Amino acid sequence: MDGWEEFSSQMDAYDKVIILVDENTKQHCLPYLEKKWTGQYELIEIPSGENHKNITTCQTIWNQLLELKADRHSLLVNLGGGVIGDMGGFCASTFMRGMDFIQIPTTLLSMVDASIGGKLGVDMDGFKNLIGLFKNPKAIFIDPQFLGTLPKREISSGMAEVIKHGLIADADYYEQVIKYPPALSWNELIARSIEIKKEVVEKDPLEKGFRKILNFGHTIGHAIESLNLDTDSHLLHGEAITLGMIAEAFISTRITGLSTESLEKIRKDILGDFSSRGNINLNPHKIFENCLKDKKNKNQKVLASLLSAIGKCEINVEISKKDVEEAMVYLKSTIKK
Amino acid sequence: MDGWEEFSSQMDAYDKVIILVDENTKQHCLPYLEKKWTGQYELIEIPSGENHKNITTCQTIWNQLLELKADRHSLLVNLGGGVIGDMGGFCASTFMRGMDFIQIPTTLLSMVDASIGGKLGVDMDGFKNLIGLFKNPKAIFIDPQFLGTLPKREISSGMAEVIKHGLIADADYYEQVIKYPPALSWNELIARSIEIKKEVVEKDPLEKGFRKILNFGHTIGHAIESLNLDTDSHLLHGEAITLGMIAEAFISTRITGLSTESLEKIRKDILGDFSSRGNINLNPHKIFENCLKDKKNKNQKVLASLLSAIGKCEINVEISKKDVEEAMVYLKSTIKK
Repeated sequence: MDGWEEFSSQMDAYDKVIILVDENTKQHCLPYLEKKWTGQYELIEIPSGENHKNITTCQTIWNQLLELKADRHSLLVNLGGGVIGDMGGFCASTFMRGMDFIQIPTTLLSMVDASIGGKLGVDMDGFKNLIGLFKNPKAIFIDPQFLGTLPKREISSGMAEVIKHGLIADADYYEQVIKYPPALSWNELIARSIEIKKEVVEKDPLEKGFRKILNFGHTIGHAIESLNLDTDSHLLHGEAITLGMIAEAFISTRITGLSTESLEKIRKDILGDFSSRGNINLNPHKIFENCLKDKKNKNQKVLASLLSAIGKCEINVEISKKDVEEAMVYLKSTIKK
Repeated sequence: MDGWEEFSSQMDAYDKVIILVDENTKQHCLPYLEKKWTGQYELIEIPSGENHKNITTCQTIWNQLLELKADRHSLLVNLGGGVIGDMGGFCASTFMRGMDFIQIPTTLLSMVDASIGGKLGVDMDGFKNLIGLFKNPKAIFIDPQFLGTLPKREISSGMAEVIKHGLIADADYYEQVIKYPPALSWNELIARSIEIKKEVVEKDPLEKGFRKILNFGHTIGHAIESLNLDTDSHLLHGEAITLGMIAEAFISTRITGLSTESLEKIRKDILGDFSSRGNINLNPHKIFENCLKDKKNKNQKVLASLLSAIGKCEINVEISKKDVEEAMVYLKSTIKK
């Protein structure tokens, strides 16, 4: 990837470079980075996993930045998936009121989603990204080479956002990405997903309206993810979003006119195998309670983004507790099939 | 003040208004606000004082925002001095990636300084405003009426920033503000100080260069303030800045050509009475260590803003440990006079 030359010259422009890793990216990704860039750096290592994406870990990062004598003119390089990118970006943006940061996403999910759009933050009290801000990194470097370091479950999880990009904005792309064997190379697939996300974000960088189409599957998906956090049935983000997309596609047939044929097609195309996942908690009351805490709501109404067809999405659609309850019944029956 | 009608109409535009206070502003300022605006609101109360300006208190505020079911469309009103404004603004800017906030500064210091310029943040490990960001409030409402609720020591502390505005940018204004009895009304004085600060900030909102003139007195002043935090000799911000300005004026005679006559004039004009303050720690080694951690430094060099004359300031002037040591000797001798 020629981008690495550009990367090296950007890195060399800073007096001090700090690389943020977790135990996985330290072992699997840092050696590759060191081959591509031979400059001096300091390392901050944090434990991997969504359960460490909180203010306490931020305090560790801020403390270490201080100890390493980082200042506003230093650079933080976030080498990892969504957790590293979101939390490292948040810490950099708030350390001394803002130092530069570069994102090097190492998971499919963060390549096509988390690293694009400037959303940064950490979880609090079980709520995803409750504390955060919008800020773009100085640069993003994406190299599909890193995907080779990932377990298959992580790749599948990342595919959920790729599939979502097709479902909300591009029916042809949707057909391509659900094909097996793959119809697109990683480079092609990542490039088109980023293109879709960028088109959406550029029209509405601060999520005032249109950008919410990216939220398809996420109102209920985040609620499921939060509910199963720290349990045996812990789900990867993309897995929760897959369940959320099926649930919201079900509600879409009731409210925004998605055909039942499309719903069945989506279910078959994307569900995959949850049989080994343990007992996923889909308690409709708790799911709805969690939906009520979504950042995109207004006046204590749950607003979702729903499909009117494959490739077409509508925003700010109010969904009721009954909608969620029925969607959970549908979801439970479909997971068992 | 006619601004209150404007204020009321702004407040009424939000579905949910939360007012952040401490025990002092709850008692002395909230009743006045309630007379001016009769809308519904929720209250968050935090303990007063710089020693509570930290991430732990932020977590309390974020938690309460969550419990009060605040969302991105709610408004946080920060009713108080610099601590409330800086920390409340930071919490609002990061809650759900940003809700609106309005500043109602109730101290002279926050009226002329903290509320203007979009600097938000909290302290960490004894370092002032280590964690924070730049963001402007939706509005700032200033009513000198609140000054009537303040102890004299707080007013004197606020005068330090007023005096600084004169010293760095306007020699005539400086002569007016040091006069006793006062040559200007509170309205006139606050208006001119804000005007000076705004002119500076608008030229350089993110503190890339010129804005650093506002830092005169603050490199050493912050260092003194941090060193005496949580001690018997605890200083108000303005008191520490007064000492910092005298120390940096002393160094200015060595480096940027401030005349010794001007230094002696500044010392006599602004020092005031520190005799009752207990044993202020001015350990030169520790002061310099603290200076090294200033956010405006680069490459581990201490960069200060120094005067070339009363009303004229230069930025990015490197000062050495020896400069700081000699300034501390001068400062100690002058406090004793």
